[in-house]
Amino acid sequence: VVWWGYMTRPATTETAASIGERELIRRLARLLPASDDMATGIGDDCAVLRVEGGSEDWVATTDPVIADVHFTADAPPRSIGRKAVGRVLSDIAAMGARPRWLFIDLVAPPDCPVAFLEDVYRGAEALAGRHGARIAGGDTATGSVLELHVFGIGSVPAGTAVLRSGAKPGQALCVTGRLGGSLEGGRHLEIEPRIAEGIWLRERGFASALCDISDGLLTDCRHLLECSGAGADLDLDAIPISEAAASASDERTPLDHALSDGEDFELLFAVPEERLDALSAAWPEAFPALPCTRIGTFTATPDVLRGRRAGEPFLPLDGDGYQHFVSAR
Amino acid sequence: VVWWGYMTRPATTETAASIGERELIRRLARLLPASDDMATGIGDDCAVLRVEGGSEDWVATTDPVIADVHFTADAPPRSIGRKAVGRVLSDIAAMGARPRWLFIDLVAPPDCPVAFLEDVYRGAEALAGRHGARIAGGDTATGSVLELHVFGIGSVPAGTAVLRSGAKPGQALCVTGRLGGSLEGGRHLEIEPRIAEGIWLRERGFASALCDISDGLLTDCRHLLECSGAGADLDLDAIPISEAAASASDERTPLDHALSDGEDFELLFAVPEERLDALSAAWPEAFPALPCTRIGTFTATPDVLRGRRAGEPFLPLDGDGYQHFVSAR
Repeated sequence: VVWWGYMTRPATTETAASIGERELIRRLARLLPASDDMATGIGDDCAVLRVEGGSEDWVATTDPVIADVHFTADAPPRSIGRKAVGRVLSDIAAMGARPRWLFIDLVAPPDCPVAFLEDVYRGAEALAGRHGARIAGGDTATGSVLELHVFGIGSVPAGTAVLRSGAKPGQALCVTGRLGGSLEGGRHLEIEPRIAEGIWLRERGFASALCDISDGLLTDCRHLLECSGAGADLDLDAIPISEAAASASDERTPLDHALSDGEDFELLFAVPEERLDALSAAWPEAFPALPCTRIGTFTATPDVLRGRRAGEPFLPLDGDGYQHFVSAR
Repeated sequence: VVWWGYMTRPATTETAASIGERELIRRLARLLPASDDMATGIGDDCAVLRVEGGSEDWVATTDPVIADVHFTADAPPRSIGRKAVGRVLSDIAAMGARPRWLFIDLVAPPDCPVAFLEDVYRGAEALAGRHGARIAGGDTATGSVLELHVFGIGSVPAGTAVLRSGAKPGQALCVTGRLGGSLEGGRHLEIEPRIAEGIWLRERGFASALCDISDGLLTDCRHLLECSGAGADLDLDAIPISEAAASASDERTPLDHALSDGEDFELLFAVPEERLDALSAAWPEAFPALPCTRIGTFTATPDVLRGRRAGEPFLPLDGDGYQHFVSAR
C-alpha cells in the first residue's frame, strides 16, 4: 500500500511505530462509540457482552499469532497452534470466565504443506479441547507468512466477570506461577492458560481485579493500576522467578527478566484484605503444583508503581515490557 | 518458516495451493470435533451458537481483508475498513441475523501512518454503526502488509437462523440485486450488506435456505446444493446482470461475469413454492430500490447444477468462482 497517495506527508508524520502499540489502540478506540450492551470498554483482557434477560454474560477477545513476531521458523507446528489458542484462552481466564467457542482466521503461504497446517490445527484443538472449548469456525486466506488470528468467546454468570478496574488501595497484589524467561525456556509456546484458577478465584471472591501477564509483569501491572485508578508498591524480593529466568545467560538479571519479559501467561490479581487468609489456606489445596505469591500492595497514588528490596526504600519502577510497533522500529 | 524442517518432502507434497481453499478448509474442519452447543458445523456463513435457556441463538463468523488480496494499493482507507466490516456483516445477513458486536485484529506495517489507520477505523465504524453493530475490541500487531481480521457476532431468535441446508426440490432459487463486475465497478469496496433484507426474509418465512454471494454465483450456489443435498436448474436469461458486468471490456461476456465474479455480497436463497406469490407481492413494497429475482428451481439430483438459455436444453454448468490458494499458484 502506498500510504502517501492519500495525504501529503508532513515533516513529522506519526506512524504505528512512532506512537507505539498502546497509544495506537487508544487512538483507534477513541473513534469507536461505547454501547449499553458492553459492560466494559476496550482495554480489558476481554470485552464483556450483555445478553438481555440472560443468566450469563459473554466475554470475547481476539489475538494474533504471526510468524517471525510470535514464533520463529523452528517452532513445531503443533506448538504454533497451541500458542495461538493459548493466548486467547489466557485472556478468557483473566476474566474468570469459562471458554466456549474459538474461531481461527488462518493466513498461509500457498506453498505451505497441508500436513503442516493440519498439525497446527491439531495443536490448537488439543489445547482448546482440554479446556472445554470448541473451534467452531474460521476462514483461510493467502499471505506471505503464516498467521493465526484466533477469536474466542467465553461465558460467566451475569455481572461477575472480573475486570481490571476493581483494585482498591490496601488490597494485596498476587501472581500465579513463576515469571520471566518464557522465550529462553520455550514456555511462550507451551502456554498453560490458567482457566481453572481464574474461575476458582472468581467463584470464591478472591479477586477484585484480574488480568493475565502477556506483556510483562510491570507493563500489565500498570494496566491494572490505570484501570483501577490506583498505585502499587512491589516487594521485589518476593517476585517468583522462573528457572529459565534464573539461568538466562545474558546481561539482564533474573529479576529483570521476571519484571519485564512478556508471555508469562500467569494471572495477576488484587485480593481484598479480608480474603487474604482464606486464599492462603485454600490455594495450596486447590492447586498444589502452582505457586500463588503476594508480591505487593495497592496504594492510593494513581499510576505510581514502586518497588523495594529488603531494608531499602521504595523507588519508582520505570522499566517496561514488550510493545508491538516500537520494538519493530 | 522453513516447512521442511519437520517432515521429509515427498515427491508430491500437498500444499495449500495444490489442494485449494475449499479442500483445505474441509481437511482442517475434519480435525475439529462437533459439539452439542453448535447448531451447525463448519461450512455455513456463520456458526450458530446455542445458549442454554436463552431466547436467542448467536451467530459468529470471521473474515480476513488483506492488502494485495482483497484490496489494492489505491483503495481509500475508509473503503478498506468498510470492506472488512461489510464482508462479516454480509455473512451475518446470510443467517437472517441482527449484527451485534465486531472485533478487529489489525496487522499493520510499522511505517503505516496513524492517520491512515484512523481512516480505516472510521470507515469500519461508519458501516457497523449504520447496521446497529458495535466494534467492541480487537488487537494490533506488526506485519509486512496491512490486514484486518474481523470477527462478528449476531443474534437471532433461538432456532430460527436460516442455514444453507434447507433447500428442497421444487423450491425457487432467488437472488437480490444485480450480479458481476464488483471488481470493475468498485462495488467490492462499497459493500452494502443485506442485513434488513436477511432479517425480513427470515421473519416472514420466505427463505428456507440462505447464503451470501461472496465467491461468485455458481460457487455459492454449489455450496447451497452441497449443504441441502439438492441440485438446481438455472434460467440463464433471468440472471440479473450489473451495469459494471454489462460494460466490462474484457473477453468474458456479461453473463460470465455475473455467474463467476466474486464479492457481489447479495443474498442467494431458496423460497418455498407456497410462499413465492407472497414474496413477489411484498418485496417491491419493502425494498423498492433493490431487485429480487427468481433465477431457477431446486431439483432432486444432488450437486447437479445446470443452466439453459430460452428455447435451449439444460446443460451442466462447470464454471467456478474465485478460490484462494489455487488462484495464487
